[in-house]
Amino acid sequence: MWKNSSIYLIKLVEQFESLPGIGRKTAQKLAYHILQMPKEKIKVFTNSILDAHSKIHCCSVCCNFTDKEICGICLDKERDNSTICVVEDPKDVDAIERTHEFSGLYHVLHGVISPLNGIGPDEIKIAPLINRVKSEKIVEIIMATNPTVEGEATAMYISKLLKGLEIKVTRLAYGIPVGATLEYADEVTLSRALLGRSELF
Amino acid sequence: MWKNSSIYLIKLVEQFESLPGIGRKTAQKLAYHILQMPKEKIKVFTNSILDAHSKIHCCSVCCNFTDKEICGICLDKERDNSTICVVEDPKDVDAIERTHEFSGLYHVLHGVISPLNGIGPDEIKIAPLINRVKSEKIVEIIMATNPTVEGEATAMYISKLLKGLEIKVTRLAYGIPVGATLEYADEVTLSRALLGRSELF
Repeated sequence: MWKNSSIYLIKLVEQFESLPGIGRKTAQKLAYHILQMPKEKIKVFTNSILDAHSKIHCCSVCCNFTDKEICGICLDKERDNSTICVVEDPKDVDAIERTHEFSGLYHVLHGVISPLNGIGPDEIKIAPLINRVKSEKIVEIIMATNPTVEGEATAMYISKLLKGLEIKVTRLAYGIPVGATLEYADEVTLSRALLGRSELF
Repeated sequence: MWKNSSIYLIKLVEQFESLPGIGRKTAQKLAYHILQMPKEKIKVFTNSILDAHSKIHCCSVCCNFTDKEICGICLDKERDNSTICVVEDPKDVDAIERTHEFSGLYHVLHGVISPLNGIGPDEIKIAPLINRVKSEKIVEIIMATNPTVEGEATAMYISKLLKGLEIKVTRLAYGIPVGATLEYADEVTLSRALLGRSELF
């Protein structure tokens, strides 16, 4: 398409293509959509990007995204402030909130320890978590990092730091996803589900 | 997710969700990606949207998108200026250019006649096409609107306007898509392919 296309169109397609999960075709579709949008809507769209980027930052307590000094979850007096659920990413807070099963507080690491990618413990928000645990009365820490190699290693690393602080450190259960069939479960998941079996009665 | 989310994040997700082909999940992923992008990249991204929207407009000859007064295709002296291919949308110009089979000029209608949606012949760029045909030496007009009800009706409408001007008006061939199997071709396509059959030798 490029020989006779405007350089502005080419640049716009490239920008959309650089976003996660957007391929060349979708980027082109989005770029043409932008060109055909009314001017006011373009202003609203770009302002929503600039506003969100400039006003949203990390909560000074839990490091989740917020536009306040301290986020709504940390300020919520009805939540159980003796339990902290440690997650990799702000998206994970949303995922757990959607279950309506957890009423404690969160701590967002903003990444996982990944030596191959040059990310050590100091590159993610582990230190604020340890300070928080030492200064507040925490009873339980739930490690809810992803069940990947890096997620596991990060959970292990943090749990070792917390040893000797008389805090219960737990990990999300592994097992077969609800609604899935055993046939399609991978062997590691299935063996973890066997190991973690519980009594029915 | 919304109870404890920042209003700026919610607005950003809504904006992404309003784009074509972007659902709630993808919109959330894009919004979080935006929040984690460096400030300079955000500036480049929003500027590419604003630049494209303000600088790109319709070519004064063929109505395709361009940032010049007249687009590169219309100005190209090597192209056959006696043939005009009429398409619905600027995206269709890209699609035909990718075939490298057409070296004539284009005319972009920016829509199709669609009484149900309140779009009559005056809402799309039919008048500029007729003026062009009358003032230039055109030998052939290829109607390349989509093979939909509206696309067909628009092609018929324009071809009637061109009657009596001693111009060859043609339509893209219908038939089975190359690489497809007969088994999955719909009946209308298959019967058109039969009607339009050509001699092998």
